[in-house]
Amino acid sequence: MLKGNEARLLSDIRELSRIGATADGGVSRQALTAADIEARRWYQARIAEAGLDYALDGAGNQSAILFSDPPSEKRILAGSHLDSVPNGGRYDGSLGVLVALEALRTLKENDIAPPVTLEAVNFTDEESAIMGLMGSKAVAGQLIETDFERSRVDGAELTRRFDAIGISRESMLGAARDDVLAWVELHIEQGTRLESAGIDIGVVNAIVGIRSVHVTFRGEAAHAGAKPMDRRRDALWGAATFVLRAREHVMRHYSPGVCNVGIINAQPGAFNIVPAEVYCALEYRHGSDDEMDMMRADLYRLLDECAAKHGLSVTYEKTPAVIPAAMSESVMRAIERGADTLGLSHKRMLSFAGHDTQNMAKIAPAAMYFVPSVAGVSHNPNEFTCDADCVNGANLMLHVLLELVKECA
Amino acid sequence: MLKGNEARLLSDIRELSRIGATADGGVSRQALTAADIEARRWYQARIAEAGLDYALDGAGNQSAILFSDPPSEKRILAGSHLDSVPNGGRYDGSLGVLVALEALRTLKENDIAPPVTLEAVNFTDEESAIMGLMGSKAVAGQLIETDFERSRVDGAELTRRFDAIGISRESMLGAARDDVLAWVELHIEQGTRLESAGIDIGVVNAIVGIRSVHVTFRGEAAHAGAKPMDRRRDALWGAATFVLRAREHVMRHYSPGVCNVGIINAQPGAFNIVPAEVYCALEYRHGSDDEMDMMRADLYRLLDECAAKHGLSVTYEKTPAVIPAAMSESVMRAIERGADTLGLSHKRMLSFAGHDTQNMAKIAPAAMYFVPSVAGVSHNPNEFTCDADCVNGANLMLHVLLELVKECA
Repeated sequence: MLKGNEARLLSDIRELSRIGATADGGVSRQALTAADIEARRWYQARIAEAGLDYALDGAGNQSAILFSDPPSEKRILAGSHLDSVPNGGRYDGSLGVLVALEALRTLKENDIAPPVTLEAVNFTDEESAIMGLMGSKAVAGQLIETDFERSRVDGAELTRRFDAIGISRESMLGAARDDVLAWVELHIEQGTRLESAGIDIGVVNAIVGIRSVHVTFRGEAAHAGAKPMDRRRDALWGAATFVLRAREHVMRHYSPGVCNVGIINAQPGAFNIVPAEVYCALEYRHGSDDEMDMMRADLYRLLDECAAKHGLSVTYEKTPAVIPAAMSESVMRAIERGADTLGLSHKRMLSFAGHDTQNMAKIAPAAMYFVPSVAGVSHNPNEFTCDADCVNGANLMLHVLLELVKECA
Repeated sequence: MLKGNEARLLSDIRELSRIGATADGGVSRQALTAADIEARRWYQARIAEAGLDYALDGAGNQSAILFSDPPSEKRILAGSHLDSVPNGGRYDGSLGVLVALEALRTLKENDIAPPVTLEAVNFTDEESAIMGLMGSKAVAGQLIETDFERSRVDGAELTRRFDAIGISRESMLGAARDDVLAWVELHIEQGTRLESAGIDIGVVNAIVGIRSVHVTFRGEAAHAGAKPMDRRRDALWGAATFVLRAREHVMRHYSPGVCNVGIINAQPGAFNIVPAEVYCALEYRHGSDDEMDMMRADLYRLLDECAAKHGLSVTYEKTPAVIPAAMSESVMRAIERGADTLGLSHKRMLSFAGHDTQNMAKIAPAAMYFVPSVAGVSHNPNEFTCDADCVNGANLMLHVLLELVKECA
């Protein structure tokens, strides 16, 4: 049975993890920073080394290309992203790009000419250093000019980063593609469901929606000694109450939906001043848009109740939402047939993280699959996936592509 | 009966509140910034205008002086501070300096030569822009060289600020005085006890101790979607639980003691990352040092319990404590006699805020008194004390000084 080169894949993982390496074993490769650009150069060198063709599109997405003969009008794409969160792990995104590359290399060195052109893609800025899922958003034709105004870096820095790889706002806006026949992505699970169940492969049937809200509780600044505690309107009391009540409510009523307060700070911010204002970055996720509407109503009601309980006001400002994305039944079945061929156990499950696949699903049949994450650790230097699972994931990518091209033959 | 010039005092309050004024009616006059220096120049001009003598000591403390004839070896001092917290109120500190000035002006224009030299003092940096109670600490001989290392501004900035008023680290360290016969300070209450009880004057019998702790909860960073909520070790859950339990415990068992978490922030700090680390700045205050020891034990136990509840670790690092300061019985009685003379109602109470008086109490009989704060608002642009209470406070300062000099006559 056709398989990838295990040693080469594992060596690639090790080499790539040295680029942007942090002292504690993680990587910091925020999109289009020096470390990310070094990883991109490394990927281009691997493509050249393998004798595959290389392309860079207007969004900075890099592709290894294995042409069909004659080159087909449409293409099947696989891949993920090489950028990381600050002090993130070595597998998130990277493994998905490397297994797609390994699949194309294996086909090429076995002289298997696919009936349809294949690409192994590294998407630009999946992890939101600039705007999140940026490269795939551009490919899916979802990027609009005003998106740049919401960039997490300022205009001058955005220009510098784009210049560094020879792209521009204009080229990004022109990067939409209409030649994608199908898309498949491998990603680490970033959870513990596969590990707990002892299952090799998670076939993702939907990617959860994500809604993010800027929340501000407002009370009254006061002297932290002289103002009696029962007269205070401490904005942190409201925020702390909300953090705990939202946790309890979402766990009880919306599991496996989740919520998170990932940023919090108090103003004016001094030992001796009762907080007048507390900002919280609230995010919640669910696989169903209807359930998300109910979560929103519940969470907003909780915000109001927690503010009222401590004599505060509260305001909330939504940011653009990510709508839950259903996966393609035909691509999911190709994944399941590939897993069956390789004798890998599999089950369908939700993806709780956002992925480039949700953008690709807008323009082509798309699906993705998970390999286990040890202890579910992710966005963390301790993120880890066993070599055996990396190899399983790579061989599965090879066989999924064989299944997908079979349908095009 | 001798009284101050009411119109002049109220005009002083209005004029001074324009220096460093903020748009919302407060003042920002952090120590030795441009606004504070302007206020200092204004004070010096008022002293000159009144025909009083002026002195600047090595700590940058400014004094209006009314000499006895012949000048006495020791002096009676009154005053407070003109600096403010960022976006603070118009009365905190300022009123205490202005009433002392008004008392000296009134004595001078009534040709009353006191039997002992009097000073109306503006202490440098009461509000911790640099290190808190700095000027009075220097006068009390409590300042040591290593204190400068804990300055809230860096070394270069410290030098710039000192240079701006012609002082230095060396002159600060040499500013201790041994000529203080007694000290008295007027301050706004910054609480609601006087207002609630309808009483004119609060005679402070002790200034509470203050202990400050840097607290850090540590859990595990995780993907805010993929990590199931029941598997998270979210540092913010521990911090939020502590904020609420500490609030409840201190209110129930240590009232009128207080606690505050005035600074909070989460690391790594992103919508989509479960907080690995949350820092909290915790402060607690009480009038008795023994009670403070018990509070410490209880709060540390709560920290441990809240961390354990959410699978976190927690560390705490104490900063130098302020020990509760008892006031001088003789000066308190002088205040009470002065209030009786003026027909002002009074009661004894704790001061929950730290004040320069706690340093002065180390080198001389010292006490302080409060006038009411409307709604207890303080460290806030809405801080307010009625004109009538400002005038009462000024007339009382005049009569307290008359009482104190009587004892020296």
